[in-house]
Parts: sequence; structure tokens; C-alpha cells
Amino acid sequence: MSDFAAIRAAADRARGRIRRTPLLSSMALDRLARRRIYLKAECLQVTGSFKARGGWAAVSALPAAARARGVLAFSSGNHAQGVARAAKEFGAPAVILMPADAPSVKIDNTRALGAEVVLYDRATQDRYAIGGEIAEARSLTIIPPYDHAEVIAGQGTTGLEIAEQAREAGIAAGDVLVCCGGGLSAGIALALEELAPGLRVRPTEPEQFDDMARSLAAHARLGNAALSGSVCDAILTTRPGEMTFPILSRLAGPGLVVSDEEALRAVALAFTHLRVVLEPGGAVALAAALFHGDEIAGDSVIAIGSGGNVDSALFARTIQRYAV
Amino acid sequence: MSDFAAIRAAADRARGRIRRTPLLSSMALDRLARRRIYLKAECLQVTGSFKARGGWAAVSALPAAARARGVLAFSSGNHAQGVARAAKEFGAPAVILMPADAPSVKIDNTRALGAEVVLYDRATQDRYAIGGEIAEARSLTIIPPYDHAEVIAGQGTTGLEIAEQAREAGIAAGDVLVCCGGGLSAGIALALEELAPGLRVRPTEPEQFDDMARSLAAHARLGNAALSGSVCDAILTTRPGEMTFPILSRLAGPGLVVSDEEALRAVALAFTHLRVVLEPGGAVALAAALFHGDEIAGDSVIAIGSGGNVDSALFARTIQRYAV
Repeated sequence: MSDFAAIRAAADRARGRIRRTPLLSSMALDRLARRRIYLKAECLQVTGSFKARGGWAAVSALPAAARARGVLAFSSGNHAQGVARAAKEFGAPAVILMPADAPSVKIDNTRALGAEVVLYDRATQDRYAIGGEIAEARSLTIIPPYDHAEVIAGQGTTGLEIAEQAREAGIAAGDVLVCCGGGLSAGIALALEELAPGLRVRPTEPEQFDDMARSLAAHARLGNAALSGSVCDAILTTRPGEMTFPILSRLAGPGLVVSDEEALRAVALAFTHLRVVLEPGGAVALAAALFHGDEIAGDSVIAIGSGGNVDSALFARTIQRYAV
Repeated sequence: MSDFAAIRAAADRARGRIRRTPLLSSMALDRLARRRIYLKAECLQVTGSFKARGGWAAVSALPAAARARGVLAFSSGNHAQGVARAAKEFGAPAVILMPADAPSVKIDNTRALGAEVVLYDRATQDRYAIGGEIAEARSLTIIPPYDHAEVIAGQGTTGLEIAEQAREAGIAAGDVLVCCGGGLSAGIALALEELAPGLRVRPTEPEQFDDMARSLAAHARLGNAALSGSVCDAILTTRPGEMTFPILSRLAGPGLVVSDEEALRAVALAFTHLRVVLEPGGAVALAAALFHGDEIAGDSVIAIGSGGNVDSALFARTIQRYAV
């Protein structure tokens, strides 16, 4: 099966289970950006983030017997909930390995989706070792967060919708800014290659965690020096994936990089003008559309926005500081 | 033209100009309410509230010559912006009469839509007298906020979408909770009478401003003692409309009444679980669905949610206090 056929197949399996999210826009944001901005509102996706797509695709693609034995994911956030929700709907067991110091709201949200949460100590325990042991002992299938063909295909269903929505909005060419991620950028790039070749993916990352941007420029997979320290925690990676990087090398435009403050300003502007709730990591693409217009092509730009596990205290501080 | 035909005609005129808003749901809210809750997310409507529908319907229904002379609305909020936006898209002048003490964000938002804002002093000036003089002197057409056939038809387009979305979701019977308003409740009731007779409108109001609930119970139009003092300022009315009341007397179930605190809790829950931004007045229907379940019929309930001119300081306090 070609990559594109896998995306179509993932979309077929997701029918009625994954939402087609709207493209939102506002005259106020268009004025700020001096072009039309369309936000693909994945914060309205089930579980609040596009990760529900990849989780559904991976769990639904498993042979029934493997699925019945169960799945395991390492994640402190949105991927965990995407996998947990998919497993729950299939009546399959899900084990999620989370750091013991993860915010209790994330642990509670994951448990509320019926998953068994196993906590580990980040300082002293290796999650891959623990996860591998549990998976082996209980015959669980591990679902990785992005470097996995079905996860990429699932995220790519976003691209099918974008191609259709761009056609409806009369957008034939321009940039599609994606919070990176890796799996989402790669999946969308594969869908657009087939359906909307005038649209080009631009992976977008926070400062200090721009491994994809630097890797695309260097034509080699480079890592980040920092492991933590950005408010955009939902999308921090250590280096590009083995599967996602070749796809993006071939199909994506240069990476975009935004500051934490730009991401927070984008959260506040989405609140005021689009009335949706983004998390900082899910707002980097909108931030690039708003504040890095000179690096972007096209009269119209499409930016992915994602929500997920939103920290209400941080959100309150953000709108108090930046919302008009 | 029958009332229903007017709604169909309003929907035809609104094609491509008014959004079809999604029905959102979350397992967490369903658990809280012990039934399925669907939020009809009118906060994602252009201008952030369903008022854009009525404004579009009224302005688009005018004869071209009258429209070219311009329109006038009395409003401190969402209706003003709905009318201003419609006028702007038609290239028609719009005069909006607002109290001089309206929040500057509302005045700015209305001006940003190209309207001429005329301020008056609530304490010493009568807005109807001033508005009437301006309208007469400049041959403007006054667009009232709810007691107007085309405004009701425009709000009724929400009901066309609800009928279709309820069918898709397999909901044949139950209650549709509407932030009241008046025009929106009446318009939706007329649409559902024709297309989904198993669905019944339940107008929902804040405590102390439950003129519709008391009027429906008494079979007569009763007024409120209070004129201000609820955080749900967007939907406060003095008494039911002459046009809307007979429609709702015939078609609506009993009114529902929620406290300000319940409305604020609903704002916080919509933030956490649906990732949308409601204003308190636009959250009363969701509040009733969540906290007055014993007064509601059906395994599933549809509630309208609306946004509009959201006060960021109040929103921040609300989620700090009530969001998990």
C-alpha cells in the first residue's frame, strides 16, 4: 500500500469516529497578518488534539487478536489520550506509561479514558526499558507517537480535509503551517502531494527545539541541545524521526521557528478572535502565520491549531497578559 | 411567505457568508450530565455569536435602494456586530447606537467592522428617541435585535442545521436548550416544528431575568423587575417580544433558569472539555444541560453555546476559579 493509500484507508476506518474540523478565520487576524489566515481547528478534534487521528489509525489497523490483547504508549500527553480513547472505543486494554511528575490533570484525563496509567521516575528509570518489559509480559503492541506508518497515515487524514477545504475556499497555492511534531507534518505533506500540489507544508517549531528546521537546512537529522524549557511542551522532540524526516526532506519547505512569547500571543489572539482554546505548542503555526509573514508564501495561509491538555492557570495568565 | 419559508430563504441568502457551526461533545461532559450533551458551537460563528445570522438575514432582505441608504441598530454587543458585519460586506453604511459607558473593546470591535458608532448617555438620553431621529434624518432602516421577522428567520437558520445534525447523530427526540434571547429560540422552534418535530425548544435564562420562563408559565408577557446585575449581560431582556412570545407559547417547553455561578461553571467546563470560548450569557443553555438534568427530557440534549464579546479578565477569573 502506498503512503497515500494508507491515508485514505485510515480515513475510511475513522469515519464517524474522528471529527472533520473546521477552518476558522477572522477579519481581525487577517488584518494583523496582512493576508488571509485560516486556522484548521484541531483543538475541536476528539480529545482536543490531532493526536486522536494517529491513535485511531494505529489501533484500528491492528489485527483483531493483537488489539484484543491491548496496546501500550509512552506519553505524558496528547498521544496517550489519542491511543487511550481509541482503545476504549474498541474495548481493548491500554497501558500508558507516564512520568510520575506529570501534571495530575493529564494523569486523570488519561485514566478517565479507561487507560491503565503506569508511573515511572524520570530521574532513575528508563521508560523504554520499562515499557518494553510490560509490553512483552502482557503481549501488548507499542504505539509510538510519530515514527510509525499508521500514525503518520492517521495524522495525514488532516491533509485530506485541508485539500478539500482549501479547494472550497479557493486556495490553490500557498503554505500550510504545521505544529511539528513530525508525524502530522509528514502525513499532511503526503496527502497534499497527491491532492493539492500547490500547497506546501512548513513545519513550525519553538526556539531551541528547532531540530526539524535545522535538519531540513542541513539535509541531515540533527538533535536539540535542550531537553526541556519551552512552554510549548506538547511538541518538543529530541530529533526528527527516521520515517518522518525523509518525507519532509522531499516535500516540505523550510522550517519556521517562533519564540515562546509569540506562541503565547497566538494563544491569546485565537481566544479573542476565533474563540478557541489552543495550548502553546498547538499555537506555534498560528504564531508563525501572524508574526513571521515575511517568511511565508501565498495570499492565504493555513495554520494547524491544536489544544489537548490545556493548563488553565497558564491560559489565564496568557490572556490576562496578551488578550485585548 | 410562511415563517418556515422565510427561514429557508434566509439560509439561501446566507450561503457562503454564515458558517455552519459544528456540534461538539466530550465524554467528560456526558459523564457529568449523565446523558449525551451536544454543544451547537455558535461561538465559532462569524463575529462569535449567532447574532451574525439575524443581522445577515435582515440586511440581505432589504431592497437594494434601502440597503444602500444604510441601517441602524441599538446594541451594546453582539447584535451590533452582526448588523455591522453584514452592512460592511454589502458596502452599506451602518450606524450603531451604543451607551457611552460600553466597554471600549465592544466599541472598538464594532468600529473595526466599519460601523459608525454613536454614543449616548444612558442616564440622561433615550436611545429610541435618538435612534429614531438619526434614522429619519438619514433615511436609515432600523434593525431591531429580536422582534423582527427577518431577524427571527435568520436565527432560525440555526434550527435548519440542528435538524440535520440531530438526524446525523441519531437524535429523534429530546430537548434543544437555547440561550434566550427570544429571536433565536423562536427561530429554532419554527425550523424544528417543520423538520424535527420530536425536538422541543427550551428557552434558558439567568436568574432574575427569567421573563420568558415566567411568561410561558403565566401565558402572558411578564417583565423583569431588575434591569441589570447578571454576569450574563449578553442575553438580558426586559420582557418577551411581541412576535417571539406567541411562537414560543405555541412551540416551546417550559423555560429553564440557571444561576450566574452555574453559567460561569459552564464557561469553565466548555473551556476544559470542548476547548471553546463562551461568554456567560452564551453558556446558560450548557449550564442547564449540566446542572438541571432532572428538568430535561431525552437521552441526548442539544445546547446552543455562543461567544461574542468575551471579557478576557472575567474569562481568566472564571477558569482560575472553576476549571479543573
